[in-house]
Amino acid sequence: MAEPLKVGVAGLGTVGASVVRILQQKAEQIAARAGRPVVVTAVSARDKGRSRGLDLSNVAWHMDPSQLARARDVDLVVELIGGAEGPARACVETALGAGRPVVTANKALLAKHGVALALAAEGAGVTIAFEAAVAGGIPIVKTLREGLTGNNVSRVFGILNGTCNYILTRMEKDRIGFAECLADAQRLGYAEADPTFDIGGFDAAHKLALLAALAFGVQVDPDGIYIEGIASITPFDLAMAEELGFRVKLLGVATQSESGIELRVHPSMLPKDSAIARVDGVTNAVEIDGDVVGALVLAGPGAGGDATASAVIADIVDIARGAKLPVFGVPAAELTAPKRAPMGTHQGGYYIRLSVLDRPGAAAAIATRMAEQGISLRSIVQRGREPDFDRPNADPVAVVLITYATNEAALRVALDAIEADGHIDGAPQVIRIEKR
Amino acid sequence: MAEPLKVGVAGLGTVGASVVRILQQKAEQIAARAGRPVVVTAVSARDKGRSRGLDLSNVAWHMDPSQLARARDVDLVVELIGGAEGPARACVETALGAGRPVVTANKALLAKHGVALALAAEGAGVTIAFEAAVAGGIPIVKTLREGLTGNNVSRVFGILNGTCNYILTRMEKDRIGFAECLADAQRLGYAEADPTFDIGGFDAAHKLALLAALAFGVQVDPDGIYIEGIASITPFDLAMAEELGFRVKLLGVATQSESGIELRVHPSMLPKDSAIARVDGVTNAVEIDGDVVGALVLAGPGAGGDATASAVIADIVDIARGAKLPVFGVPAAELTAPKRAPMGTHQGGYYIRLSVLDRPGAAAAIATRMAEQGISLRSIVQRGREPDFDRPNADPVAVVLITYATNEAALRVALDAIEADGHIDGAPQVIRIEKR
Repeated sequence: MAEPLKVGVAGLGTVGASVVRILQQKAEQIAARAGRPVVVTAVSARDKGRSRGLDLSNVAWHMDPSQLARARDVDLVVELIGGAEGPARACVETALGAGRPVVTANKALLAKHGVALALAAEGAGVTIAFEAAVAGGIPIVKTLREGLTGNNVSRVFGILNGTCNYILTRMEKDRIGFAECLADAQRLGYAEADPTFDIGGFDAAHKLALLAALAFGVQVDPDGIYIEGIASITPFDLAMAEELGFRVKLLGVATQSESGIELRVHPSMLPKDSAIARVDGVTNAVEIDGDVVGALVLAGPGAGGDATASAVIADIVDIARGAKLPVFGVPAAELTAPKRAPMGTHQGGYYIRLSVLDRPGAAAAIATRMAEQGISLRSIVQRGREPDFDRPNADPVAVVLITYATNEAALRVALDAIEADGHIDGAPQVIRIEKR
Repeated sequence: MAEPLKVGVAGLGTVGASVVRILQQKAEQIAARAGRPVVVTAVSARDKGRSRGLDLSNVAWHMDPSQLARARDVDLVVELIGGAEGPARACVETALGAGRPVVTANKALLAKHGVALALAAEGAGVTIAFEAAVAGGIPIVKTLREGLTGNNVSRVFGILNGTCNYILTRMEKDRIGFAECLADAQRLGYAEADPTFDIGGFDAAHKLALLAALAFGVQVDPDGIYIEGIASITPFDLAMAEELGFRVKLLGVATQSESGIELRVHPSMLPKDSAIARVDGVTNAVEIDGDVVGALVLAGPGAGGDATASAVIADIVDIARGAKLPVFGVPAAELTAPKRAPMGTHQGGYYIRLSVLDRPGAAAAIATRMAEQGISLRSIVQRGREPDFDRPNADPVAVVLITYATNEAALRVALDAIEADGHIDGAPQVIRIEKR
């Protein structure tokens, strides 16, 4: 059997501790699969005293992750510190500078510095593997980078944030509001104390930037991603979706359109019998549409120490086996600058909820504004307030419209006109419909 | 850029023609991904005159696939001839003998000769890649061999035959019988003129043998797989399943039990909201239960020229990139002889449909026989024939029992006793319930 692969693990949080534990407990099995022993020789974390249930007696301890990255007894550096800058970035750059491959779960780092780091890795003749950075334990990076090399991908989309999917699923099933549901998710540990990064869609956007690079061969660039979070979704929207044959999910969508590449994270309505629509709770799921293979769907645990460690270890074993893989599927210098499609050119169906002032002519005026922009309506749902059937009154009533595929710019013009007409109360709720 | 990889394609049926076409049409993109050009330099097929819509002007033609396998201008041999023996086997053995890696979609060949071929490949320092042999375009081989190397897999199961799933889905939705549905599937090209290999479960068994080797590190051995086909399933069974919260799928199941490894292909009832239960039509889907990652589900096109070609090309690009992967995930010499669990030790719930002679004491006798074997019943459904409510008559009536988890041997004893008691007409229908 070949020489052992000496692994240094920087960051001993939940994932890091799980990686070390599994590499130690399953040493024999992993050696059989890797064709050589895989040994943790060094770790780095801030708090040496903390109990992690690990036997680190034969493992070098480095206070500074960059010191670990250049230590003599390390062949491969696992970066699980997190953050786009600071010690994580320094650790990865030091490892690449020392000619060592890197395995990381750090989506923020790669979303921001992915191209530069990939170039550095290629210059050093090593790779950066990041299966754990996207959708936890689901082998989506491997599938895009290796499993679909004969395909042109037209769309990759899915549920990339388990916190949001947990909240939307519970709001739907228990008919409770967003705020209550979020508080509950925080109590149960499914949402952070500051949940903005998850519920605002920013976490999903980082992952989407990485998926788009792999799927389309474009440079990683999270800055231009269109992002909406889930805070505006109401139980009424979820109930209407159900009634109209949809479910609401926070999706990350990367798609090739005539105007360029659309990269967007927002609540979406999906036909309720579609594979992604049916995924509940903290589970993640991604669909890939390839021109040769058709539609593939991968679903599984998107977070958690063990699921993420599973992906980290797969990357380590790939490297132990001698895999030489381009970081984003093609040489970094060949990644093209993405031509971004502005959201105004997006074509699709829309769910629109208006709070209409219940007076004569309102419905006609709304329908006219839509027609002026050439927008056809597939469904219109308005329910009178019971038991008041006698006459309109001053309280607004919810009217829900489902449009056929239309252009987002045209829709915005129509909605602006409807607002200006003064028939509605407050801003319209707009949820895009993602086609099957 | 490195030297081109020269590919010889043996077998120009639907898949082979698609592989050649895609490698030619997408040469530039595939070269970028592979890090070197991938060029089809040789092909082999019986009928040179047949039009395949391919430009083969710069491609050497070999009548004999083994001649292609040792031709001077071939680095990698793609075997798409099919069959466990004959020219396919000779072609693969010749290629390995010449030190050339092989990519194949041939499940029959690998199910029968997989271990010997893997040993030959390792002796020659090359690999055999077979993503296309299992579940078409779904990257299930890659996921098991590379994506889950940190896991112990406890179960891998799924829909491995699109023909059966198409038939069961249509029987259910259109409430038609098996024979009529099969004839329809044959007309539409979803079933072969001789459908035995598909509907009898043999195709799924070949694939299951390969999945088990990858998941559990055991020698490929299809002979001891327990196999039942779908011909006995009736619309009544499907309707009862629906009513009781299940759907019926032909599953291949490989699972670790206390008594050893269960390998079985048979119609199964699945909770209808489980991921695999929801997969309709010709789509394939596989769930993997790993101790670290949890449950992963992969779904997609399981057959068809292009979907299969997608998997073949992914394997070719892996090899072009320099991947050195053990054929079944560990060195072939380390694959263990599987300890097979006999079906009698299987533990699970059962759906049992009895055609009961409608006379006093029948129900009590049946319940007693079950109780004697310690079998608890979760549901009992018996419907009186309408409008004849007055008294029992001579025609048998269908009684459906759902058991709690029990032992298959005990169940067989109970059913034998029930048959011997003379209260039922014909043999019982037994469908195993696959747990979530």
